[in-house]
Amino acid sequence: MPPTRWGDPAHAGPLPDGVRDLVSLVFPLVETPAAAEVAVPAPALPADLVDGLRELLGEEHVVLDDAVRRNRTRGKSTPDLLRQRAGDLADVPDVVVRPGGHDDVQAVLDYAAEHRIAVVPFGGGTSVTGGLAVERDGYTGVVSLDLGRMRSLLALDPVSSTATLGPGLRGPEAEALLAEHGLMLGHFPQSFEFATIGGFAATRSSGQSSAGYGRFDAMVVGLRAATPRGEVRLGGTAPSNASGPDLRELFLGSEGAFGVITEVTVRVRPLPEVKEYEGWHWPSFAAGADAMRALAQGDLLPTVLRLSDENETAINLARPDAIGGEGSAGPGGGGCLMIVGYEGTPAAVAAKKVAVAAALTDLGGTPLGAEPGEAWAAGRFNAPYLRDSLLDVGVIVETLETVTFWSNRERLYAAVRSALESALGEGTMVLCHISHVYATGCSLYFTVAAAGGTPGAGGEGRLDRWLAAKTAANDAIVASGASITHHHAVGTDHRDWLQPEIGDLGVAVLRAVKRELDPAGILNPGVLIP
Amino acid sequence: MPPTRWGDPAHAGPLPDGVRDLVSLVFPLVETPAAAEVAVPAPALPADLVDGLRELLGEEHVVLDDAVRRNRTRGKSTPDLLRQRAGDLADVPDVVVRPGGHDDVQAVLDYAAEHRIAVVPFGGGTSVTGGLAVERDGYTGVVSLDLGRMRSLLALDPVSSTATLGPGLRGPEAEALLAEHGLMLGHFPQSFEFATIGGFAATRSSGQSSAGYGRFDAMVVGLRAATPRGEVRLGGTAPSNASGPDLRELFLGSEGAFGVITEVTVRVRPLPEVKEYEGWHWPSFAAGADAMRALAQGDLLPTVLRLSDENETAINLARPDAIGGEGSAGPGGGGCLMIVGYEGTPAAVAAKKVAVAAALTDLGGTPLGAEPGEAWAAGRFNAPYLRDSLLDVGVIVETLETVTFWSNRERLYAAVRSALESALGEGTMVLCHISHVYATGCSLYFTVAAAGGTPGAGGEGRLDRWLAAKTAANDAIVASGASITHHHAVGTDHRDWLQPEIGDLGVAVLRAVKRELDPAGILNPGVLIP
Repeated sequence: MPPTRWGDPAHAGPLPDGVRDLVSLVFPLVETPAAAEVAVPAPALPADLVDGLRELLGEEHVVLDDAVRRNRTRGKSTPDLLRQRAGDLADVPDVVVRPGGHDDVQAVLDYAAEHRIAVVPFGGGTSVTGGLAVERDGYTGVVSLDLGRMRSLLALDPVSSTATLGPGLRGPEAEALLAEHGLMLGHFPQSFEFATIGGFAATRSSGQSSAGYGRFDAMVVGLRAATPRGEVRLGGTAPSNASGPDLRELFLGSEGAFGVITEVTVRVRPLPEVKEYEGWHWPSFAAGADAMRALAQGDLLPTVLRLSDENETAINLARPDAIGGEGSAGPGGGGCLMIVGYEGTPAAVAAKKVAVAAALTDLGGTPLGAEPGEAWAAGRFNAPYLRDSLLDVGVIVETLETVTFWSNRERLYAAVRSALESALGEGTMVLCHISHVYATGCSLYFTVAAAGGTPGAGGEGRLDRWLAAKTAANDAIVASGASITHHHAVGTDHRDWLQPEIGDLGVAVLRAVKRELDPAGILNPGVLIP
Repeated sequence: MPPTRWGDPAHAGPLPDGVRDLVSLVFPLVETPAAAEVAVPAPALPADLVDGLRELLGEEHVVLDDAVRRNRTRGKSTPDLLRQRAGDLADVPDVVVRPGGHDDVQAVLDYAAEHRIAVVPFGGGTSVTGGLAVERDGYTGVVSLDLGRMRSLLALDPVSSTATLGPGLRGPEAEALLAEHGLMLGHFPQSFEFATIGGFAATRSSGQSSAGYGRFDAMVVGLRAATPRGEVRLGGTAPSNASGPDLRELFLGSEGAFGVITEVTVRVRPLPEVKEYEGWHWPSFAAGADAMRALAQGDLLPTVLRLSDENETAINLARPDAIGGEGSAGPGGGGCLMIVGYEGTPAAVAAKKVAVAAALTDLGGTPLGAEPGEAWAAGRFNAPYLRDSLLDVGVIVETLETVTFWSNRERLYAAVRSALESALGEGTMVLCHISHVYATGCSLYFTVAAAGGTPGAGGEGRLDRWLAAKTAANDAIVASGASITHHHAVGTDHRDWLQPEIGDLGVAVLRAVKRELDPAGILNPGVLIP
C-alpha cells in the first residue's frame, strides 16, 4: 500500500469518466497530485537502543529502511492521506520491528518500557481515526510494532466452532486458512482486504454482514495479549460466564493502549453454500429504516442489510453507470435503495428469504431483483479507491459514522447533515447509509464530498476545511446523544469526544487500567484515552 | 422470605410423600429442623453514625429491627441456609437502609466512605455464592443497602424497544410493569420470583429462556451506578459502538464491588402470543447435547432448550409422580429428557417448530409431546422449596454450575461428577442438566443430594461435608479448564477460584478499578475480588 493511497496499486487509477463528469457538475475539479516524495527523516531512536532491539528479534526483523518506515506512517483517513500528499512525515516511526510471536512482542514491550520507547502496534495500517499517530514528546523514540509475521491459524476446534488466529492475518488470509477446513469467519468490513484480525479486535470493527454474523467483538470468545506487566489470557474457559466483569471487553476496543493482542479466538461458521444479494426500493429513508427496525426487533435479520438515503441512492457511488437506470432506485425513480443479502444453506436461505420478503412487502418495500445486490457485492470494497481519485482532482471526500437508538435516528441524521453542510458550505454532498442494525438501534454512515477550497500544494487548504467540518460533525453527534463512533474506533481523532460519552469516571477507569497495565505509558501514547 | 428457607412461606411444606419414599431408599432421613431462633446481635454501628444515616434518608428508612436485619443476613446457598438453621448470625448487618433513588444511594456511599462503613447492596437476597457475606474487620459497621424502594419503570422507549428499570424490581414486578405496555423482558432464572433487576445485572444472571432471549447481560444496553467517586452512566448513547473498551461489561458482574447499580436499561420485546413447551427423548446425554450444539451452531435455537442427563431424567425432581411413566423418559424408558420451548407470534412459533423438529428428528430425537413441557413449565421455579424440605430431613442438597466449550463438555461433566461422588461418598446422587447453550459452548448445572453425615443440631456436620465437596467440585472445574460459574456469580464462595480463570493481571485490573472507584474499600468487602 503506497502511503498516499488506498490498497492495491493495480486497482488505483484516475476518476472514471462517468464519475468525473458527475463530480464536475458540482465541484470545481483541480488536478491536485501528491507533492513529490520528501525525504524520510532519519531515525531518532538512539543507535544503542536499535541494537538492543536487534538483539531481541534478530537483525532482519528490525527495519530502518525509509520506504518501510514511510509505509508505516499514520493510517488511511483523509487527513492522513492529505498530510502524506503534502509531504508531512512528522509521524514517521523511527524503527519498524517485526516480532514472530507472543514472546517476541513481550520482549519488545519489556525493552520499550525499560527505555521509554513508544510502541505503535501496526496491523493493516487502515485506521481512519488517527490510531497510528502517537505522541513523540517524552519518549526516546517511536517503534512501529508490525504484526505481519504473526499470520498463522494457531488452533482450530471444529467441535466448538472456534479458531485461534494470529493478529497479523489480513481478512482474506484468515478466510483462506479457514476455508481449507470448510469454515469462515464472516467479517467483511470495507477495509477487509488489508485490515488484520488484531486490528479488528483492538478497534471493535463491524463488517458488512453484521446483520447475520454480528460485530467482530461479538465473534471473539477469547484473546491473548502482551502488556508491559506481562501476559493476559481471557475467555479461554467458556464463551460466556458470570465470573465477574468481562475483561475481554476491556481489551476489545483498547486500540493498543493496554496491550498488544497476540492471539484472537473467534467463533467460526460453515462456509455458506448459497449467497444471494438483492435490491429493494423504499419510498423514503425513514420508511426503509422503519423496515430495518422491524426486522431487527422481530429477530428476522438477513445476513446483509443496508439502506442508502435518497442522496446516496441517487449518486450510487458504487455504480455510476447505472444511475437513474430503469427500474432501479435513483434520480429516475427517487426513493431509497436497500441491499438485502442471504447466506447459508439452501434451505435456510430459502426459508429466510420468504419470511423477510413477506415482511418487507408488508412494510411497503418493492423488490428490485438480484441485479442491484450483485452490483453492490461486486463493488463492496472499492470506495476507498474512488476516494483517492477524487482527492487527485482537489475534492474533499471522507466518511464518518456513528450509532444511536432507533428513536434518536432522525434527530442524529439531521444534526450531522446540517453540521457538515454548514461547515463546508453550499454544494456539499452528504450521503448516508445504515449498514449495521440492532434490535434497539442502528449505525449511520456518512460520505461527504465538498469543494476543496483554495488548493494549496498537496491540499493544505482542504485539510483545514475538513478538520473544521469533522469537528462540527463530532460536536453534533455528541449533542445528539449518540456514540462518537460505531466501528471506526477512537484513535486520536475522536479522543476529545470520548469523555462526554463515558463521563469523567469512565475516563478515570480507563486511566486506572492503563496505569496498571502500562505504568510507563509506552503503548500507543495519545491514542484512545482522553 | 424467612431467613432459613426459600421464598413464599405459603409454598413451603414437608417433603411430598412420593419424594420422601424415594429419598428414603437412598439416604437415611433424619428430621433436622432449624435450631430455635437465636437472638440477633445488637447493632455494632456506633449510634452517631446511625443518626447520620437517619439524617440522610429519614428516620423511617434506617431500620434496626431484629427481624428485618435477620432477613437481610446472607443469601440462599445451602451453606447460608445451614448456618442460619444453626443459629449462626455472625453476618447480620447492623443497619438496613432503604434509599429511595440514585441520589439517596450516592449520599449513603459518600457517608459510608467518610466513616468507613461497609455497604452491602441487597436486592432479592437470593445469592447462592456468598455474595452478601462481607468482611467486617476494619469497618465501623455493616450496612445492608436494601434497594426495595427503587422499584419503578423509569423510562420506556417503545420505538427503540428499551426500558429503564429500577434495581429493586423483582422479576415478576418488572414483567408486570412491562406487560401493561404489551412488552416483556423475558428473563426467567429459577430465582425469578424474588431476585431483582439490579441483582441480575450485578451477577450476570441467565434465565431459562436464554436460548431465545439471551443472558441478562446481553439484554442490558445501559446502566447507571453510584460509586464512592460519584455517578457513572454507560451505554446511554447506543446499543453497541467502537468507543473504546465497553465499560458496561465492567459493571455487569461487578457484584456491588465497584458501585451500586441504580438504573438498568434493557432491551424489551413484545409479549409472546404463543408459548409452547414440549418434551423430546434422547438415547443418551451425549446424543442430546450434540443435538443442542447442532441447533446453536445452526442458528436454529428455540426459546427454551434444556436437557437432563440420565440421572436427572430418572429422578425428574420436578414431577416425582411421573417417574417411569409410560412414554416418558425416565427409569422406565431410560435415556434423557429434553425440554424445548417456543414463544412468539403464531407464525414465528409454527415456523421455528417445524424447523427445530425436523433437525431434532434427523439427529435421533423422539418427540414426547406437550405433557413433559407443560409439567416443566408449571414447576420451573419450585426446586428451591424442595431443597428446604430435603434439608428438613437431614439430607445434603445443593446445586452448582459451570460453563465450557463444547469440545470440553464431556471431560468437565465427568470431572465434576467424580469430584462430588468422591467427596461425598457412596450413594451420592449427582444430577445434571444443560440449560444454557451458545454456538461455542454450554453450561452444566449440577444438583447434588447426599446423606448428611452425623447430624449436629442444625446440621453443622452437613455444612462441613458440603464445603469439602464444593471445594472438590471447584477444583475439578478449574482443572478441567472451565469457568467457575456460568450464572451464579463469584461472591465469596468462588472468589478463590477466580484467579486461575482471569490470571494475575486480570486480578490486578479488577483491583485497579476497585481502587479507582472505591478507594476506601467500603463496597461489598471480600466479595468477588481475590
